[in-house]
Amino acid sequence: MITERVPTMEKIFGANNRLAAENRARLEDAGVFSFNLMASPGAGKTSLVEQTISRLAGRLRLAVIDGDIATSLDADRAAAAGAVAVQINTGGDCHLDAVMLQSALDELDLSAIDLLIVENVGNLVCPANFALGTHKSVLVASVPEGDDKPYKYPGAYRGVDALVINKIDLLPYVNFDMAYFQRGAAALNPGLATFPLSCSTGDGLQPWLEWVVEQVNTHGQGHGIERI
Amino acid sequence: MITERVPTMEKIFGANNRLAAENRARLEDAGVFSFNLMASPGAGKTSLVEQTISRLAGRLRLAVIDGDIATSLDADRAAAAGAVAVQINTGGDCHLDAVMLQSALDELDLSAIDLLIVENVGNLVCPANFALGTHKSVLVASVPEGDDKPYKYPGAYRGVDALVINKIDLLPYVNFDMAYFQRGAAALNPGLATFPLSCSTGDGLQPWLEWVVEQVNTHGQGHGIERI
Repeated sequence: MITERVPTMEKIFGANNRLAAENRARLEDAGVFSFNLMASPGAGKTSLVEQTISRLAGRLRLAVIDGDIATSLDADRAAAAGAVAVQINTGGDCHLDAVMLQSALDELDLSAIDLLIVENVGNLVCPANFALGTHKSVLVASVPEGDDKPYKYPGAYRGVDALVINKIDLLPYVNFDMAYFQRGAAALNPGLATFPLSCSTGDGLQPWLEWVVEQVNTHGQGHGIERI
Repeated sequence: MITERVPTMEKIFGANNRLAAENRARLEDAGVFSFNLMASPGAGKTSLVEQTISRLAGRLRLAVIDGDIATSLDADRAAAAGAVAVQINTGGDCHLDAVMLQSALDELDLSAIDLLIVENVGNLVCPANFALGTHKSVLVASVPEGDDKPYKYPGAYRGVDALVINKIDLLPYVNFDMAYFQRGAAALNPGLATFPLSCSTGDGLQPWLEWVVEQVNTHGQGHGIERI
């Protein structure tokens, strides 16, 4: 089974990478900065999207593409927070791929967007293997998941550009050694931009929002804002 | 890409199902009851394994097979709690399959085991698609993951025989509507045996342990115990 699977997967990855490059070119041409948001189920991707949108709306033109196995719950939340939202239902697939993003991009007016957040399916393994064409990848970890996750899911931590550590308001109630967690992440991804925060209380959101705006100003085209 | 992927996946599922049947026959012949433990990363599979082992050790002969992307952290914890433990590192694969279980079974003396727990890779999507040959499937949800998970990951809830809702000690600190969660699970899997509990405090563990022992007595061969 393993030997059968490898060439097929290589073919799939190759085709995916070509489409991801096309998606990136499309985003670049339109001056849209985008990131791929990945996490375990329930780490707080959608809460982070809500907080990010509601605090940047009015200053940036925002859109969200939400990948889920089923339902439009996440896109509904993103739309309620003030973004243009497109839902992708993967129908069972465990990750987004570049084809799905391509279809979703067709539904957006890219010329009217500064920041596009692509919320991937909740999964700490598979999404990391499929480039979408976004500029950056962001991983959301959460305190109640436990401090051993970088050690156990190295692939998820290795390739990302920023790490959000959500639910720090639960630190008093669970065993979570922040230093042990951060050592694990740093070993896999030295110098990784890290944002401990709580989407419930709002603590720590400011540095995260500053990072997002800095990326929009660096990668977007002229739609940037000076400071938040 | 989708059209290419389907026949390959069907071939893989077919081969996997044949091997799963072989694994089941082996377990049946040896009188071992086994269950496949699935969950998101950090829901508390390993904590549940630890609690189950330490409370049943001495009365049942226990073994654990731990599937992980990397490290032997989980098998180390299972061994420390008092079980024979075998670690499978999938090397990146997002789920266990019947081939991996077959190899792990080779490392165990099945005639000396009453209960075998197979702890799958932390992933709420892919493991549900791959039969291993165990008698039952158990899903661990956790309160901080959020009450929308049955709606968003229906495949994980549909096929399982029991549902553990872990971390109920965190209910006072997070937004989690237990009735909404349970309505979602019941719609997908009516009559599902459900065990709200906390591996941290020990609350609610007793009914779960009783279910496990009942399964061993029903499916195992003569190694059962009367009550715990």
